[in-house]
Amino acid sequence: MSAAILAIGTELTRGELVNGNARWLGERLTELGFTVTEHVAVPDDAERIRGTLLRLGQGSKVIVCTGGLGPTSDDLTSQAVADALGVALVRDPASLAKIEALYRTRNRVMPAMNAKQADFPQAARILLNEVGTANGFAVAIGGAQAFFLPGVPREMQFLFDTHIAPQIAGLAERRSHQVHIRTYGLYESAVAQRLSDLDRGGAKHDPRVTIGYRVTFPEVEVKVLAEAAAGESLQDARVLAERVAEEARALLSDVAFGSKNDSYPGYVARLLKRAGLKVALAESCTGGLATKLLTDIAGSSEYVIGGAVSYANTAKVALLGVSETLLREQGAVNEAVAREMAEGALHKLGADLAIGITGIAGPGGGSPQKPVGTVCFGLARRDAPTQTLTEVFPGERETVRTFAAYRALRLIAGVAAESLDAAKSTRGS
Amino acid sequence: MSAAILAIGTELTRGELVNGNARWLGERLTELGFTVTEHVAVPDDAERIRGTLLRLGQGSKVIVCTGGLGPTSDDLTSQAVADALGVALVRDPASLAKIEALYRTRNRVMPAMNAKQADFPQAARILLNEVGTANGFAVAIGGAQAFFLPGVPREMQFLFDTHIAPQIAGLAERRSHQVHIRTYGLYESAVAQRLSDLDRGGAKHDPRVTIGYRVTFPEVEVKVLAEAAAGESLQDARVLAERVAEEARALLSDVAFGSKNDSYPGYVARLLKRAGLKVALAESCTGGLATKLLTDIAGSSEYVIGGAVSYANTAKVALLGVSETLLREQGAVNEAVAREMAEGALHKLGADLAIGITGIAGPGGGSPQKPVGTVCFGLARRDAPTQTLTEVFPGERETVRTFAAYRALRLIAGVAAESLDAAKSTRGS
Repeated sequence: MSAAILAIGTELTRGELVNGNARWLGERLTELGFTVTEHVAVPDDAERIRGTLLRLGQGSKVIVCTGGLGPTSDDLTSQAVADALGVALVRDPASLAKIEALYRTRNRVMPAMNAKQADFPQAARILLNEVGTANGFAVAIGGAQAFFLPGVPREMQFLFDTHIAPQIAGLAERRSHQVHIRTYGLYESAVAQRLSDLDRGGAKHDPRVTIGYRVTFPEVEVKVLAEAAAGESLQDARVLAERVAEEARALLSDVAFGSKNDSYPGYVARLLKRAGLKVALAESCTGGLATKLLTDIAGSSEYVIGGAVSYANTAKVALLGVSETLLREQGAVNEAVAREMAEGALHKLGADLAIGITGIAGPGGGSPQKPVGTVCFGLARRDAPTQTLTEVFPGERETVRTFAAYRALRLIAGVAAESLDAAKSTRGS
Repeated sequence: MSAAILAIGTELTRGELVNGNARWLGERLTELGFTVTEHVAVPDDAERIRGTLLRLGQGSKVIVCTGGLGPTSDDLTSQAVADALGVALVRDPASLAKIEALYRTRNRVMPAMNAKQADFPQAARILLNEVGTANGFAVAIGGAQAFFLPGVPREMQFLFDTHIAPQIAGLAERRSHQVHIRTYGLYESAVAQRLSDLDRGGAKHDPRVTIGYRVTFPEVEVKVLAEAAAGESLQDARVLAERVAEEARALLSDVAFGSKNDSYPGYVARLLKRAGLKVALAESCTGGLATKLLTDIAGSSEYVIGGAVSYANTAKVALLGVSETLLREQGAVNEAVAREMAEGALHKLGADLAIGITGIAGPGGGSPQKPVGTVCFGLARRDAPTQTLTEVFPGERETVRTFAAYRALRLIAGVAAESLDAAKSTRGS
């Protein structure tokens, strides 16, 4: 069952505002089982609104339209709908009384222009807005049920959830199930390359299955969508999606870390918590980003002790005890410094493990030997020798910093996973 | 001259992602003088993409299309365009070589599926993407010039600014001028309230002038748009916009810090640089966010020495020398601790000024005396007594952390501005 979303407002088409209403409605309609075939935004232009409504009325079963129900001269939705239907606008006394009452509770007199908000196309069904001035309304346009809501997100959401969702929920039969697999550590194309092996099992050639990708850099989400074929139930789709997702997870076992709404920092935080490990960080080029990512998560004081952002060399010496001679003789970006930063943080803060990050985020500071993007990592542990490594990340300053901070989180995750494995095999023995 | 924006991706129509690209393009096209008549988003569905392109080709002079140029099976844009034009896809050797070279610089072999990103509709003009894998392309569809760009915002923006804007700028006659005023320190409604005084000068009732707002939390941007009336020139619109903007800036003098593309952290960085001051930060509840914001800016090593993220009390003691007795007796969130954190960072790191931040970001840790959102700040200076203050910020963890980090930046900005004023008056005497 197909649905379309129409947003009205020149502030949208001019790019003064992001169309968050369309995103919200797209998610809700999808959850209800609709296939959302189109989002459209048009300016406050009665002819365009009218034309778009007539067009969408041809191909959709449901149209949800937001905006243009205000009191000002550029609010044209009701008139455009009336024109599209070839009917008149009719004033609704109950709506007018409601608006006047709202103004009275604010000790104000309703401005005359607001009366317009009580005008609706003849035969429209009025949708009572209990959280704002403008009531919504519903009409039939072509083959579609069309709903008109104010653009204020809170009011739009209230009206949709109260008046529309209950009414249209029965129209769409939810026929698909989606499983989300979140990954970190590979580019989107490499993730897809891995999943090309799914072809062999036939899953990717199964017309019921769609594999989608979403990048929230540097994480890549894989979406396995299964749609029930004719004669199948939602449960069949669910079973199919889960089976393909399991295959996909197996192919991505080294990079898959969670499902929808998970984040890699959140995953690392959970590992640390389960392993009972406390981490310290010594960051130079990342400027606090790795620590920020780990402490974005509520309850992070359980596993983050803290750390130093040792941007200048003097800070590396003063906070972490990095050797001045080393810095003078070899500079700040090398594995020896990363090692001393990590070990300094470990000992100063009494952590179980500590990370040192020093590198060249750019745009300046690169050289042929050490190009922009070069980042050295130290990983110090209370119970194991310190490891160091160097990576050269592509991209600009922000990209390099994000790559480097996530790489540090991956080092932390490795230690936590190892520790959990060891605990498991001890219990097992 | 009319322009339309088409975004391709099921993640958009399903509401998994907000369509930020359409907003960005809407703004840019408007600035170039185009009337943006429609934003459309459609799923990864070749037939819908084709149909929508043919429809938009009827009414628009320019179509900018984003997304669906990736390497995976759900990336269908090039094929849909070829179908719309009735031509074949042709592999472009230069594009293929570029993608292969990109992989080589990362010491990797290009996955076979990426070759698809070198396929373009016959006779398409290729738009070189110097910041990513997927090149864009341009074709004529109906009466429109149509441009196809990757959905990755950074790459899309680069391609638009580099290849499209210069080419289409001459098509539209620019009749409006917009001035952007960036502010930090007030909510959007409070900014609007301040500007209601513009009414008195008539600017807000001038039909040529529109005042718009855009929130990028916690910053609020004011946009003053002036459109030339019949018989007026672009220069008339520019003069009008600048005059109203000047009035607006006067009403917002304590919170306005810059114009378009400025950010508050960038502004604070500039102040520090001009004042020749070096800053250190000691962060607890903000977990490195304030340092991260200041070091987001290239060249930040000139004015950021570094700092400590002293999340745990042990870190406050070990890195900053905060008194254990104080922490034991009064806890971690109070102005005395904020003072010792700031002074510890100042002295350890030899900074000109240092900030201490300790608070309760939530969701846990609040009490009736110190609710979630309570944050204490210390501001230590080499040449002045330490100041402390406490704020209670509304909202959830992320909001509180952002409020607190920005508040710290404002304290830093205050010192830098004072120092610059003092230098000015010394020079003046």
